[in-house]
Amino acid sequence: MNRESKPGSIILLMEGAIAFVRLRNPAKFNAMSRDMWWQLKEVFEEIQQSRARCVLIAGEGAHFCAGGDISEYPSFRFDAHQLALFHETEVWGGLSAMLNCDAPIVAAIAGNCMGAGVEIASCCDVRVAGESAKFGAPIARLGFPMAPREAGLVAAALGANVARAMLLAAEVFPASRLQDTGYLTRVVADADVDAQASDVAKRIAALAPGAAKMNKQILRMSKFIPDARTYAYADGAEHREGIAAFLHKRTPDFGLDEK
Amino acid sequence: MNRESKPGSIILLMEGAIAFVRLRNPAKFNAMSRDMWWQLKEVFEEIQQSRARCVLIAGEGAHFCAGGDISEYPSFRFDAHQLALFHETEVWGGLSAMLNCDAPIVAAIAGNCMGAGVEIASCCDVRVAGESAKFGAPIARLGFPMAPREAGLVAAALGANVARAMLLAAEVFPASRLQDTGYLTRVVADADVDAQASDVAKRIAALAPGAAKMNKQILRMSKFIPDARTYAYADGAEHREGIAAFLHKRTPDFGLDEK
Amino acid sequence: MNRESKPGSIILLMEGAIAFVRLRNPAKFNAMSRDMWWQLKEVFEEIQQSRARCVLIAGEGAHFCAGGDISEYPSFRFDAHQLALFHETEVWGGLSAMLNCDAPIVAAIAGNCMGAGVEIASCCDVRVAGESAKFGAPIARLGFPMAPREAGLVAAALGANVARAMLLAAEVFPASRLQDTGYLTRVVADADVDAQASDVAKRIAALAPGAAKMNKQILRMSKFIPDARTYAYADGAEHREGIAAFLHKRTPDFGLDEK
Repeated sequence: MNRESKPGSIILLMEGAIAFVRLRNPAKFNAMSRDMWWQLKEVFEEIQQSRARCVLIAGEGAHFCAGGDISEYPSFRFDAHQLALFHETEVWGGLSAMLNCDAPIVAAIAGNCMGAGVEIASCCDVRVAGESAKFGAPIARLGFPMAPREAGLVAAALGANVARAMLLAAEVFPASRLQDTGYLTRVVADADVDAQASDVAKRIAALAPGAAKMNKQILRMSKFIPDARTYAYADGAEHREGIAAFLHKRTPDFGLDEK
Repeated sequence: MNRESKPGSIILLMEGAIAFVRLRNPAKFNAMSRDMWWQLKEVFEEIQQSRARCVLIAGEGAHFCAGGDISEYPSFRFDAHQLALFHETEVWGGLSAMLNCDAPIVAAIAGNCMGAGVEIASCCDVRVAGESAKFGAPIARLGFPMAPREAGLVAAALGANVARAMLLAAEVFPASRLQDTGYLTRVVADADVDAQASDVAKRIAALAPGAAKMNKQILRMSKFIPDARTYAYADGAEHREGIAAFLHKRTPDFGLDEK
Repeated sequence: MNRESKPGSIILLMEGAIAFVRLRNPAKFNAMSRDMWWQLKEVFEEIQQSRARCVLIAGEGAHFCAGGDISEYPSFRFDAHQLALFHETEVWGGLSAMLNCDAPIVAAIAGNCMGAGVEIASCCDVRVAGESAKFGAPIARLGFPMAPREAGLVAAALGANVARAMLLAAEVFPASRLQDTGYLTRVVADADVDAQASDVAKRIAALAPGAAKMNKQILRMSKFIPDARTYAYADGAEHREGIAAFLHKRTPDFGLDEK
């Protein structure tokens, strides 16, 4: 399940109940090439079919992701058809595979998290960042706007105020500011990012996996209205175990070791 | 109007223009029993019919509310029909009575504010918390998801980022973090919570009650479009008094003492 | 293009690519008179027809805007028809001209930013405030609610939690609190507000103006779905220049000096 390690790739490594995803394009601070967007989609589709209970995504080395791989842009961006294909199929293909992932996703964010990096981070459920991490989307310097679905994603996750400052004024935000707004769950010393993100992922893996899946499906709803499946979990083993464990003052056993 | 004081009850006390609501289940940090959800609904329906200008809600003793009363869960949660009834009728009955209350609601939050506590706090308009108060919804440990309407309420109030961290990673947030995001209006020394919340409630009670009711009705709109009633207040006594008082540099008299 | 300077006016001054808008009613901390709302609409319609790449809006003197000009209220507010005309045509006419402006708007906020001031600030894309600036909407003291469209605007920009505290409890927020929530992009020493806001405006003016316009149109969408125009910029000069400049490691030239 371990992809071949090469520049410009998305590496997937399964370790027990946790799927480790690594953005890798070391010469370019892990900027996303077109091929990496395709790989991102494949990796998250593989995770969705797996028994992973949590995903931990990080960049290789000192940065999370510096944006798109601009060296590829002259070969396709100036044609409207190819540009639409890029944003709607390639970029959104990768991002929507992340958004559709039923397992909780933890981001470990060091260094630069810009443009595509913010988009990828915005698909995660929990974000742990180093204190020197930086966030922005200065694409107005590149002469083009953020595509609609991507702008909608980023504005919803960052809040419209922060998104406007990033997109319209090329403002860069330090981690501390985005902890204040709630976008970052934890901001820690740079040296502790991997360890803290890993701790959160392990904690999630020990929680009830079916409840996590249902919570993610509910939070994805546009209207929060119950349907026929909403309470179908009532008689389930996970539900019974969680409540029994609480009442007997013991740690619940959601079958993590069986995996 | 004062309910009998007993464990597992919602106490209502009217003092002038302020309705004091107290969550009381002292052996369980005021965890909400099924009966307390029914009482919560009744109490807020009574307040809605009263002349109360403000509601102040608090937990008895050192905690706001530690969640649901889990000791009751084995008797009904493993049957899908009863489970739906519990969430849709009992829990949502209490919460929607709070959401439909036209008088502003101030929460005084000390100690633990978890699960059902966060849901109740999210129905309030102003939240005053002690500096050691803690907020979370670690129901993934109990093996079940948050019900859709409750998740929608909590995600809207806390923001999706904080809600995801609570629900999916069992993250607990200190009061200072939720002051930063704007969820908590004020964070004060633990010893000052009641006094500060009471000050806010008294200030609200002295403001224009009709304006408060209209503001709450407007903020409940899904689309902010005026209708035939929107400007019907033009010739009203409260409107005239507020503007006259400002122009004469005196404190407006919105009839608080007549009550 | 410079309007005659008089009390109760909106002053427009074009300097190169930046449109400077000044709220001016010096005897009343720049409170908005009915005539000023009409002027605000005219000024932003003029900007929209101009080649301005950025707007910088500020109050004259030590305050941004203290609210509405209440001395005018007895002459029209107690008649429902005139009241509707005021909010729906005059106030919303000015605010919607701001919201429809395709050039990014930077607010420089000193001193009081109350009521109408918060509404005007909420139409801006980037907000720079002085550390002693204060924000609120204590209209409940005046005996009337915020009009629906205005409440929707303010609740979306401030977040519902802050908006409820302002409207229902007359709570006043210092700049630092609204920097934490993300509403304010930067909070600086009072003496530096104009210089910092001007720096941001100049930076925006040097960025790609077409990208800014498209970004603002996208962020205004209710659903973030691409349409036929979304990728029509592919072959444009601005898009080509931005990418070429990045790849040649030079500053992009988006034609600012030609203006």
